[in-house]
Amino acid sequence: MSGTSESIKPEVRALRPYSLRPDRAAIKLNQNENPWNAPREIIEESLRRWQQRAWSRYPDFVPRALCENLAQFSGWPADGIIAGNGSNELIQASLMVTIRPGSRVLINEPTFALYRQIVTILGGEIISVPLDSALGFDIPRLKNQIEKSRPDLLILCSPNNPTGCVFPREDLEDLIESFAGLVVVDEAYHEFSRQSVVPLLERHQNLVVLRTFSKAMGLAALRIGYLLAAPELTREIGKAVLPYNLNALSQIAGQVAVENYEARLQPLVELICAERDRLYEALKTINGLMPVQSQANFMVIRSTIEPRRIFTELLARDILVRDVSAYPLLADFFRVSVGTPDENNQLIAALKEICT
Amino acid sequence: MSGTSESIKPEVRALRPYSLRPDRAAIKLNQNENPWNAPREIIEESLRRWQQRAWSRYPDFVPRALCENLAQFSGWPADGIIAGNGSNELIQASLMVTIRPGSRVLINEPTFALYRQIVTILGGEIISVPLDSALGFDIPRLKNQIEKSRPDLLILCSPNNPTGCVFPREDLEDLIESFAGLVVVDEAYHEFSRQSVVPLLERHQNLVVLRTFSKAMGLAALRIGYLLAAPELTREIGKAVLPYNLNALSQIAGQVAVENYEARLQPLVELICAERDRLYEALKTINGLMPVQSQANFMVIRSTIEPRRIFTELLARDILVRDVSAYPLLADFFRVSVGTPDENNQLIAALKEICT
Repeated sequence: MSGTSESIKPEVRALRPYSLRPDRAAIKLNQNENPWNAPREIIEESLRRWQQRAWSRYPDFVPRALCENLAQFSGWPADGIIAGNGSNELIQASLMVTIRPGSRVLINEPTFALYRQIVTILGGEIISVPLDSALGFDIPRLKNQIEKSRPDLLILCSPNNPTGCVFPREDLEDLIESFAGLVVVDEAYHEFSRQSVVPLLERHQNLVVLRTFSKAMGLAALRIGYLLAAPELTREIGKAVLPYNLNALSQIAGQVAVENYEARLQPLVELICAERDRLYEALKTINGLMPVQSQANFMVIRSTIEPRRIFTELLARDILVRDVSAYPLLADFFRVSVGTPDENNQLIAALKEICT
Repeated sequence: MSGTSESIKPEVRALRPYSLRPDRAAIKLNQNENPWNAPREIIEESLRRWQQRAWSRYPDFVPRALCENLAQFSGWPADGIIAGNGSNELIQASLMVTIRPGSRVLINEPTFALYRQIVTILGGEIISVPLDSALGFDIPRLKNQIEKSRPDLLILCSPNNPTGCVFPREDLEDLIESFAGLVVVDEAYHEFSRQSVVPLLERHQNLVVLRTFSKAMGLAALRIGYLLAAPELTREIGKAVLPYNLNALSQIAGQVAVENYEARLQPLVELICAERDRLYEALKTINGLMPVQSQANFMVIRSTIEPRRIFTELLARDILVRDVSAYPLLADFFRVSVGTPDENNQLIAALKEICT
């Protein structure tokens, strides 16, 4: 019976699934998570509120209360905010309402792998511009490519995963103005760069900003993301967001995290940024390693030793990092998330050992 | 600035968003939920396990442990199971890998509104066959339509929402065999019908079965669904399922619910079925009401009084039901979920008052 192959679209059949090796280690520096657990106050208050709620009842159709919190938090009105099951879901919704077979989407490379995956499934075409030799955004080349291939959509991850570079705000504004389609800026790591493009939303109806609770907010387990855009635009993107998309417990935990951000999470973000700078300086002194300055909570490191060997030797020492050597431009690189001070010390010590 | 309207696909712009009035009442019989809260043992064990897990760490890439539980529970191997953020997400993934502009999807009407919504966003075309005059599946007409319009995909909701009719298994097998495309059977309410099409999976590679934790399992707040199909098919559908799609806490609660199903949930399902039958008999005796027998945890009721008025008068008595009069064939109907015995008594008393 050939039901399967006949029914599945050829572009899907040809696609390799996006996946991640399920390695485990005591020191986990491979997913750019907040290295501290969510603060105790946030966990306890969430548990308390959950027990007051019937688990057998659906969440709100749209998570209005959380969106109100997010409006206060981000300075952008609630009717221009969609909360979702991780920002992945909101990338998908944005693409579902805009991409049809043949649509062209411009990205930089290397960048977050999921953009290409979703665009391909929807039958769209990815056009990519490589980062420059310093692993920064290559703006002249990007502009050139826009003129040449007139893409329907532009996705920028800023700070970029996996390189940590930030798209300069003036250049972004320039780009948005000259671009007819939507410009999606994925700000998953914005807290660590201490800047945001949200202030541009007011003047630019074609800008979509994505954010997540999985990094600075310390709630990766709960899968919470949000999207900010002009209300006319969120109304259209919202049509592809499934009803009850964000479970009730994550809605509540998200609210508690926002309420406690300044007191409990912001200090951890500051600490992570300080550790990032310390880690960078320490890695620079290690033989054969060249870390790349980053404005996120991770960095890529060029290594004269094969990245796969670095990965394996670190794993043998119970430290898990990301081998990014299969990404374009990154054949000689591995990526580390910034851990706690103690974790970073152990990483530095292990790398010194490996790289002697 | 016309960024929005230029970028959004016209089929999306033309679509009315799927939504639900945010009415509230003490007795909530509008969403086919389990009227009891999740059993205390399930809540407490979930809370206990959650506190042993770092909230700042991502869930598993795919929820393997939950899928193993579901395999035992359903009698279908784990590599043929995908767990998701509600079955809605899995309907969407199934459609994303199969539907392109111009694809034809056959459904019955009235049925769950989301199928049409997603197919439309993907540029597909809905072909629908009305239920028969007794609100059962019209199988001859369905077969006829298949021959006539050769749809690419068939979606059956069985027991059907909002009518509660079940697609006879022999007819289904017949249909699947003669159909070249995928047949998606949404079994959200199967526990209340005491039958399932999962045993057909072994012989039919083009069958996809969807299930949910939001009804019998009593966990609507947590958004857990699962899909069962041949492993070759789940591999393809899985490409459109986002990584980390099911948050870690829902994964854990789902496991706890499966482990406690027989002891804690099955007895509630039995009670709901008994109450459904009692409610049906009681409503039959009320002047001007004609309930339709259902194999789910809800039923539609034909009313000589306008459904909107029934809805409003019940809401004034703090009882929330669903006005389904805008659905095809259901202009004279409203729908009630089966509540607890006490809730059902109050519903019966209120309807007696309204319908005198």
